[in-house]
Amino acid sequence: MENFTFYSPTYFVFGKGEEKRAGEMVKRFGGSKVLIHYGGGSAVRSGLIDRVKASLDGAGLAYAELGGVKANPRSGLVYEGIELVKKEKIDFILAVGGGSSIDSAKAIAMGALYDGDFWDFYDGKQPVTKALPVGTILTIAAAGSEGSGDSVITNENGNFKRGTSGEAIRPRFSILNPELTTSLPPYQTACGITDIMAHLTERYLTVTPDVVTTDRLLEGLLLAMIEEGPKVIKDPADYEARANIMWAGMIGHNNSCGVGRSQDWNRHNIEHELSALYDCAHGAGLAVTFPAYLTYVAGKAVAERAADAMQEIRVKRLVKWAERVWSCEAEGKTDEEVINEGLAKYRAYLAEIGMPSSIREFGAVPEDVDILAHMCCYGDGRDGSIAGFVTLDENEVKEIYRLMF
Amino acid sequence: MENFTFYSPTYFVFGKGEEKRAGEMVKRFGGSKVLIHYGGGSAVRSGLIDRVKASLDGAGLAYAELGGVKANPRSGLVYEGIELVKKEKIDFILAVGGGSSIDSAKAIAMGALYDGDFWDFYDGKQPVTKALPVGTILTIAAAGSEGSGDSVITNENGNFKRGTSGEAIRPRFSILNPELTTSLPPYQTACGITDIMAHLTERYLTVTPDVVTTDRLLEGLLLAMIEEGPKVIKDPADYEARANIMWAGMIGHNNSCGVGRSQDWNRHNIEHELSALYDCAHGAGLAVTFPAYLTYVAGKAVAERAADAMQEIRVKRLVKWAERVWSCEAEGKTDEEVINEGLAKYRAYLAEIGMPSSIREFGAVPEDVDILAHMCCYGDGRDGSIAGFVTLDENEVKEIYRLMF
Repeated sequence: MENFTFYSPTYFVFGKGEEKRAGEMVKRFGGSKVLIHYGGGSAVRSGLIDRVKASLDGAGLAYAELGGVKANPRSGLVYEGIELVKKEKIDFILAVGGGSSIDSAKAIAMGALYDGDFWDFYDGKQPVTKALPVGTILTIAAAGSEGSGDSVITNENGNFKRGTSGEAIRPRFSILNPELTTSLPPYQTACGITDIMAHLTERYLTVTPDVVTTDRLLEGLLLAMIEEGPKVIKDPADYEARANIMWAGMIGHNNSCGVGRSQDWNRHNIEHELSALYDCAHGAGLAVTFPAYLTYVAGKAVAERAADAMQEIRVKRLVKWAERVWSCEAEGKTDEEVINEGLAKYRAYLAEIGMPSSIREFGAVPEDVDILAHMCCYGDGRDGSIAGFVTLDENEVKEIYRLMF
Repeated sequence: MENFTFYSPTYFVFGKGEEKRAGEMVKRFGGSKVLIHYGGGSAVRSGLIDRVKASLDGAGLAYAELGGVKANPRSGLVYEGIELVKKEKIDFILAVGGGSSIDSAKAIAMGALYDGDFWDFYDGKQPVTKALPVGTILTIAAAGSEGSGDSVITNENGNFKRGTSGEAIRPRFSILNPELTTSLPPYQTACGITDIMAHLTERYLTVTPDVVTTDRLLEGLLLAMIEEGPKVIKDPADYEARANIMWAGMIGHNNSCGVGRSQDWNRHNIEHELSALYDCAHGAGLAVTFPAYLTYVAGKAVAERAADAMQEIRVKRLVKWAERVWSCEAEGKTDEEVINEGLAKYRAYLAEIGMPSSIREFGAVPEDVDILAHMCCYGDGRDGSIAGFVTLDENEVKEIYRLMF
């Protein structure tokens, strides 16, 4: 196990009706004038925004509001939010929504205390050291942003997604009411499930030896998602399954189960170009990316294992994933067969919850592969490759995008 | 799943050599004059206390020290610590040791800011609302006190143990270096392992339905302990196994895996009277308590299941424990047989790591049963019974103590 630090100081309030505690929580964490930041009309139409305002009123707090956050949140609205916060002397950002609203709120929180262009935090020019306090009321179990110090924003000037991280943007509190997710359409629900499982799998694909405790935790969370995911697709109002998924989404991404080990994240990098170029939902992009990536990486590792000890480690890790997460029986089979069986079960699961299996569904054509691979391997300051569980050069990334058709 | 709040704001620094960061951490969390609070001579002899002092010196921090904490930490030393802290105007308590040193440090931290008798916090007269900040350098993986807001102290005036809880006594930081645990003798190591598994099992024995996510997490941690525990008994210097156990001990008790569900804790209550009366190690007491308790509770639940729906739920839960934690095959067996097989595996595991199987080993005689059961059912403001996974009256508790011989 590698040395690490772990810090997750967010106060979580979980359960039915708990959005009524928004005012109390903002006060607890020092806010006096709040920006309520949210996405589309559903939070308004459902009465959620009114309930939040009533809670803030009840606590004697002033507020302004800024709606309009879209999936893959844009830089434009962040600039608008920063202006508003400065003008109105706002001291607390309250995100109401999913990962997009929360990530946008984090960007505004940083930008409001920074003299330069907030994008400096996202292109690595500026480390995240201070931000206004952020709180969240989560309405989509997916991104894990409610318990993380991460934020991903799409720059409208060129359509590329970049992320940043820092303790200063970890939410002070997050209110998680599973009831708020029961009205989510099945497609978005499935995107969330896919995203949560992706966060777990990125952590699971490690080359660090002897990480039994975090292995068992990640397997446990994946098993829970495999069990609970189809339940909410079948019955969107299943509160208990929604609750299990919501807590798994937070715990799976606050990194308590990913400490002390190398992680992957190649697949997130590969997907980011899909949602930037086609504006597809991040989860849907991941649903196509993961099987393609694993197919390529497993095939190469199996082919090279005899001559390369690291590839042998990767093969063993993928076999463990197939056995312990997808309950594949290894006896009497080759490692390749076991991995392929795991992959087949993963694909079947994604199909069962209604996820796409090809990037054609986003409007992609084979000619896009070169653009995607170039963006992926040279964007974000990269020098022609991406690194995680394996290091991939541009040709290999192209091969993976090809496998998505 | 029940509504809950979860807050674990401790900053964890984990890995080899990290005690060198003690000074940096105390400064980060606002300390200027530190009480170094520790147990016996081993922390001094090993050079750990000197390394801690060097780190505090390097950060320009002043300090006093108070050693002498014993297993089952006593009220007497707490009073002494409170006096010292007031006299020396200390503003930060740094515990160096296991759960005993940490719990004693928490008691001093509360008592130093309280005008009355610190015992008021432990007998329920006073809620925990403020305390000096506490940091820890953990040397024994066991109690989970490094990541919890709990503290248990033995009152020397009557030899009884009582616990208290509160956010104010959650450590600001905890430094977890698995190397510091490799010199621990096998018996104490095994006591720690037993304690960690007990914390997980107390959470696992729930009557709350539909808690799949936390079920899978708890099972994962128990499986990790079952795998790693015997490794460190065989090879005390096995850093990787020590590291896995150390993180499992924290995650298993900061409650991230126990939220939203009823928990048991009857067995901890039953054990507390053992360590209070015989001054046995808490883990050793748990090793005797758990099998006896489970034998009694399972037998009763099986006998009454036909007429009592709650007993049916308990039987199913115990079967799940045997199947998923102890890998018992259920096919072709009665529920009782499956539970008994799980119990046999649990007993065999405890024997393998060197734990006692009878309270005779602590010097107990059958005549003690009445005293133990009375202390357990009437101490701590109880009215003749204890409640958790099941509610037990004094006669039933006597029966459980009898099963420990």
